[in-house]
Amino acid sequence: MPLSLQTDYALRILIYLAGRPERTQIGQVAGFYRISTHHVAKVANRLARWGYIRCVRGIGGGIELARRAEDIRVGDVVRASEGKMHLLDCVGTENICVIQRACKLRGVLARAEQIQMDYLNSVRLSDVVRPAGQLVDLLPRAARRRQPQPAG
Amino acid sequence: MPLSLQTDYALRILIYLAGRPERTQIGQVAGFYRISTHHVAKVANRLARWGYIRCVRGIGGGIELARRAEDIRVGDVVRASEGKMHLLDCVGTENICVIQRACKLRGVLARAEQIQMDYLNSVRLSDVVRPAGQLVDLLPRAARRRQPQPAG
Repeated sequence: MPLSLQTDYALRILIYLAGRPERTQIGQVAGFYRISTHHVAKVANRLARWGYIRCVRGIGGGIELARRAEDIRVGDVVRASEGKMHLLDCVGTENICVIQRACKLRGVLARAEQIQMDYLNSVRLSDVVRPAGQLVDLLPRAARRRQPQPAG
Repeated sequence: MPLSLQTDYALRILIYLAGRPERTQIGQVAGFYRISTHHVAKVANRLARWGYIRCVRGIGGGIELARRAEDIRVGDVVRASEGKMHLLDCVGTENICVIQRACKLRGVLARAEQIQMDYLNSVRLSDVVRPAGQLVDLLPRAARRRQPQPAG
């Protein structure tokens, strides 16, 4: 039951920004994770649209968290990125299956989704990068190991 | 976070068999759900390999549950069909990510998977088709609405 690559990148971008409070260029994030700057820029734009980060243009620009890490719930990020994806199609639709009248799987799967989402929403971005110091320590070291990439 | 089509079919085949205790031809299941006989046969073979159903060849043959519906846990079926799929790759792998040392997302996602699986394993196949009578009522009616298909 894998999450999409977009969600993977969204969470990693947020973790990076939470671990490094200052404004960051997209190329730095991409270089750090060794993923495409283009993809990071695309996901960063979505994160900005969903209100999680700010994209600041121009000299000294870059991306930064738009909310405190304590105020970002992991489940909300997953839900924003994944959209209304269900374990099976029948969960989100009426009258899709011939046995729907006698089948309770739909309710079971909806509950399974909700239980997982409730747990993910009990976790804040700040919980994931804690203790914050460790991530801040990692970032400059990792950045030194590769060439800088152009900011997105 | 959708399940695969194989899991969808596996659950639907089991629900059909649990709702209709007598031996059933694969073509009947396929016709009932209006899905490909080839695909039903393929998934039925896997269900047999995992020990959930029996495939009986020859005249009077067909497929039937190999265990009581009360003894089949929904989570086990999902796990057998999905394999070791994780929400993100990092959950099932060591040393995949540059921030692993400082990132707690891996543990959070592993816990989210486990919570969902624990719930799905609290549900039995018999819970999903309950009350069993309703599904038995549906099956012959639905079968009458379409042409019979060859048994797989």
